[in-house]
Amino acid sequence: PSIGLIQSSRALCQSSRQISTTDTSSNKHVPTAPHFKTSETRKKRQAESEIDAHKQDASSSYGTRFNPYTMAHPIWSENEMDSVEITHRPPDGFVDWLAFIGVKTLRFGFDTLSGFSFGKRNEKKWINRIIFLETVAGVPGMVAAMTRHLHSLRRLKRDYGWIHTLLEEAENERMHLISALMVKKPSWFFRGCVLLTQGIFVNMFFVAYLISPRLCHRFVGYLEEEAVITYTKLLKDIDDGALPLWENMPAPDVAVAYWKLEDDANMRDMFRAIRADEAHHREVNHTLSSLKPDDENPFPPGQ
Amino acid sequence: PSIGLIQSSRALCQSSRQISTTDTSSNKHVPTAPHFKTSETRKKRQAESEIDAHKQDASSSYGTRFNPYTMAHPIWSENEMDSVEITHRPPDGFVDWLAFIGVKTLRFGFDTLSGFSFGKRNEKKWINRIIFLETVAGVPGMVAAMTRHLHSLRRLKRDYGWIHTLLEEAENERMHLISALMVKKPSWFFRGCVLLTQGIFVNMFFVAYLISPRLCHRFVGYLEEEAVITYTKLLKDIDDGALPLWENMPAPDVAVAYWKLEDDANMRDMFRAIRADEAHHREVNHTLSSLKPDDENPFPPGQ
Ligand SMILES: [Fe+2]
Ligand SMILES: [Fe+2]
Ligand SMILES: [Fe+2]
Ligand SMILES: [Fe+2]
Repeated sequence: PSIGLIQSSRALCQSSRQISTTDTSSNKHVPTAPHFKTSETRKKRQAESEIDAHKQDASSSYGTRFNPYTMAHPIWSENEMDSVEITHRPPDGFVDWLAFIGVKTLRFGFDTLSGFSFGKRNEKKWINRIIFLETVAGVPGMVAAMTRHLHSLRRLKRDYGWIHTLLEEAENERMHLISALMVKKPSWFFRGCVLLTQGIFVNMFFVAYLISPRLCHRFVGYLEEEAVITYTKLLKDIDDGALPLWENMPAPDVAVAYWKLEDDANMRDMFRAIRADEAHHREVNHTLSSLKPDDENPFPPGQ
Repeated sequence: PSIGLIQSSRALCQSSRQISTTDTSSNKHVPTAPHFKTSETRKKRQAESEIDAHKQDASSSYGTRFNPYTMAHPIWSENEMDSVEITHRPPDGFVDWLAFIGVKTLRFGFDTLSGFSFGKRNEKKWINRIIFLETVAGVPGMVAAMTRHLHSLRRLKRDYGWIHTLLEEAENERMHLISALMVKKPSWFFRGCVLLTQGIFVNMFFVAYLISPRLCHRFVGYLEEEAVITYTKLLKDIDDGALPLWENMPAPDVAVAYWKLEDDANMRDMFRAIRADEAHHREVNHTLSSLKPDDENPFPPGQ
């Protein structure tokens, strides 16, 4: 079937060369480019890819060298991934209710229109849903970061440290997307839906962020509550044997590199890491929503 | 006069606590949060600032802890800063000429309207010019980064590693601005001009970037050629004794921390670092302009 692992000739984020940092402290706390695993099995898989053509010595800084850089992001322990729970922050006041009802309405509409609510869920339904939602999920962080950056420039004020957290979220969501794309190439109809949705969502979110950052971060907080619900359901489907194709499928190289998964990581391991990311965004956005826009961002890089 | 060093109660980028990385290799090549100097003189200056109120132990990750994170960026050696030269890349083809004539026209118009071309240049004229130009300079990198990010999401394609370089440029320009703001608080009329200019420039640049990234990066490349000319002229004015107020004025703390200047760095040292940044943007943007949008970005983080 078409849900095979596309051999990642264009994989985003791998290199058999280690980034030369001497950092050895906890991955989670130090903002630095990720370290890439170089075990033999991985090396063999990578050798097959076109990426080799891009490889050059790290000392030559100009040229077509493949650049494996990603921003600081949490690397989850087994314990952290297992302890993710579905949570709900009760809406408090008009803005919160607006955000909450908005998200619930969108989820109901999307589940119905996409046919996800009906019939048996299989790998194809799941991957389409994930790809579509992640093309949306990458928007808020980037739009919010740009808005705050331009605000800092035009108001001649500092940013209070929010921008990096927003950019990290945006890149993290884009990595969810890129990882999912390694599993399936979407159809042209699907691509049209993605284009249309972005055209609407980017503009609405941008205008909303100019008016009320608080509303927007609360909205994302509730979206992420739904994302945790969705990925929890996906993990349950895998455990229940409803998605046999994915049970032993290895996680894409790009995902193994990005989340520093074990060499023999499978799809389930990847989705566990993604779910932990979503739970993290949930906390970040609910927290940012409760801050004033010129409060200090309490989140350090990669946390 | 009003061109004193405003004691930076809101300084962007200082902390008497060192970031806990064990990285000891060359600053320039490792993407990591900058290390902050903690000498006694600096500590004393910092102690006077409000920032102390924000300080908490690094181990408490949530709270109002002050966050000194900035992206990877080059730390210039004395030799690199001294060897910056005014250069010009001859336009080659219609798009290049359009960009070049655009920049030259804007510069002529701005020099005339702002009165910079007439009369004696002093500290006030200089700092107004710098603040204004840096509020513009921070726009292209962020708009280009957002455009490529959204493009990656909606076309379901990877980014080819451009985004981080564009974001680094945007933040770097914003740090130029924040550093200059430590020297002077602009007037309300000035602020109005900044608002108006951003309103026009962001929209024009965004539309232009959708149409021709090549034109936009060439445009920025030529802007940066002008920026190097401008800062070279400023350094010459300082050396000629035309700006006596700045001759022995210490560089703002935020600048010392960001560029890792010597503890006794003065305004001239700061402007030398800024000029080296501009020369770097010049090369980056001329290079990006000559690439196809899905060529691999040849610039590693912080370089
Ligand atoms: Fe996601
Ligand atoms: Fe998310
Ligand atoms: Fe600049
Ligand atoms: Fe610049």
